[in-house]
Amino acid sequence: MVKKKTASPGKKIVLIGAGNVATHLGMALKKSGQEILQVYSRSKKSASDLANSLNAAYTCDLKQLDKHADIYVIAIKDDALVEIAKQIRFKSIVVHTSGSVEMTALKGCTSHYGVFYPLQSFSKARKIKLKNVPICIEASDKQTEKELIRLAEKISNRVIKIDSEKRQAIHLAAVFACNFSNHMYAIAEDILKTNQLPFQILQPLIKETAAKVEKNSPFKMQTGPAIRGDRNVMIKHINNLSEKKTSQAIYKLLSESIRENKN
Amino acid sequence: MVKKKTASPGKKIVLIGAGNVATHLGMALKKSGQEILQVYSRSKKSASDLANSLNAAYTCDLKQLDKHADIYVIAIKDDALVEIAKQIRFKSIVVHTSGSVEMTALKGCTSHYGVFYPLQSFSKARKIKLKNVPICIEASDKQTEKELIRLAEKISNRVIKIDSEKRQAIHLAAVFACNFSNHMYAIAEDILKTNQLPFQILQPLIKETAAKVEKNSPFKMQTGPAIRGDRNVMIKHINNLSEKKTSQAIYKLLSESIRENKN
Repeated sequence: MVKKKTASPGKKIVLIGAGNVATHLGMALKKSGQEILQVYSRSKKSASDLANSLNAAYTCDLKQLDKHADIYVIAIKDDALVEIAKQIRFKSIVVHTSGSVEMTALKGCTSHYGVFYPLQSFSKARKIKLKNVPICIEASDKQTEKELIRLAEKISNRVIKIDSEKRQAIHLAAVFACNFSNHMYAIAEDILKTNQLPFQILQPLIKETAAKVEKNSPFKMQTGPAIRGDRNVMIKHINNLSEKKTSQAIYKLLSESIRENKN
Repeated sequence: MVKKKTASPGKKIVLIGAGNVATHLGMALKKSGQEILQVYSRSKKSASDLANSLNAAYTCDLKQLDKHADIYVIAIKDDALVEIAKQIRFKSIVVHTSGSVEMTALKGCTSHYGVFYPLQSFSKARKIKLKNVPICIEASDKQTEKELIRLAEKISNRVIKIDSEKRQAIHLAAVFACNFSNHMYAIAEDILKTNQLPFQILQPLIKETAAKVEKNSPFKMQTGPAIRGDRNVMIKHINNLSEKKTSQAIYKLLSESIRENKN
């Protein structure tokens, strides 16, 4: 006799927030068989747009939040998160998706709370395969942890338990690896633009630089004039940046930092 | 009648240098049908290793350089390049592969000189498809330019004419986009290590950050606490870096720079 697979029933979810994280998470959760009951946003347009694509209800009033969800997912900016957490109270699970807010910010909302933090940078315009994105889970109690891990595993292959302190370290590291490396690209774009050159010329280099650290330590992969100690090139570069004082200061500081790391 | 393709005869090439650039270029040139006559390096081991894999002769003595090459490719560190350029004299074409040395550094070597600069970061351990790598060409005269473009097009689909000034701007931009973004990864690695977390966790984020700017301006793709003006998160991060003073200074300076760019 062939054993029938019994699919675990979908969870009922309310999304609080309709930005990039809420959108990507909502889509992935729905696709994985969960039911999105409702979307909340202060902006009616944002709430209704996302609700429509998730076949959900929407509201702009916290008092109108659906009381029958299994899980409430708060995916909004950190400041607003803390404010909203003060205003809601449920019996079921409440989680937030922030990298830097402590789990205990949700203490007043429910007795079953946690964190559901997808380690990725989301933009509305780009599709992301959540399957490869690490989801960091933290929970107030074992049962909640089990529920959150089960839910996360429906959308990602890389679910990890991470406490608030370690999550904040990950978030800080992500600022360097993502936000700051993007800013390095932006400065490069600015330099090229000043010289009537297309940013596109750097594509293969950027791709290779990112690909190199897939299997190697970036510390060991460092190249360039600073690690070689090539003073002549560095002086030339610093002079070339004389019209861009902030970028010049960045060039000096990062070159020093690379030298320090070498020692 | 079907027109027969007549393959242009391979060029005879001498490689001066046996490092990463010489190795990758040498391999690609040989594969494209050129003949590598000889490899020069100060180090006998480096010279003979590369020569063996290219089926070429080798020497450690500049006076023994083969006089019958069509093109001499100097692919060594900038300082050594200028020194070696003073010591050689040929009738055929001499080029260097540097991003930052002026073409005229080769003036004394020959009356046909130029630059053959592949815009990529090469490591011995990684294979690179040169086909997609931009090769920046500059030449002392039209005939040399034609020859160099023809040669470059045998190994790359992205051959561009770039004068010394613009090439230096590209090289400077590349330091930001490649060397400095790698250093951002290295600082992230350091933060994670301090918290007993694996660098690997950031892979999807790093990949996505690089992929985002393939078709978008990095200036417009900026995310994170600095561009949002999220003071609370930034203060927390700066405090978390109190044991890593240089990284803390970098955090502050880059956040300011991101804010400046916004205005």
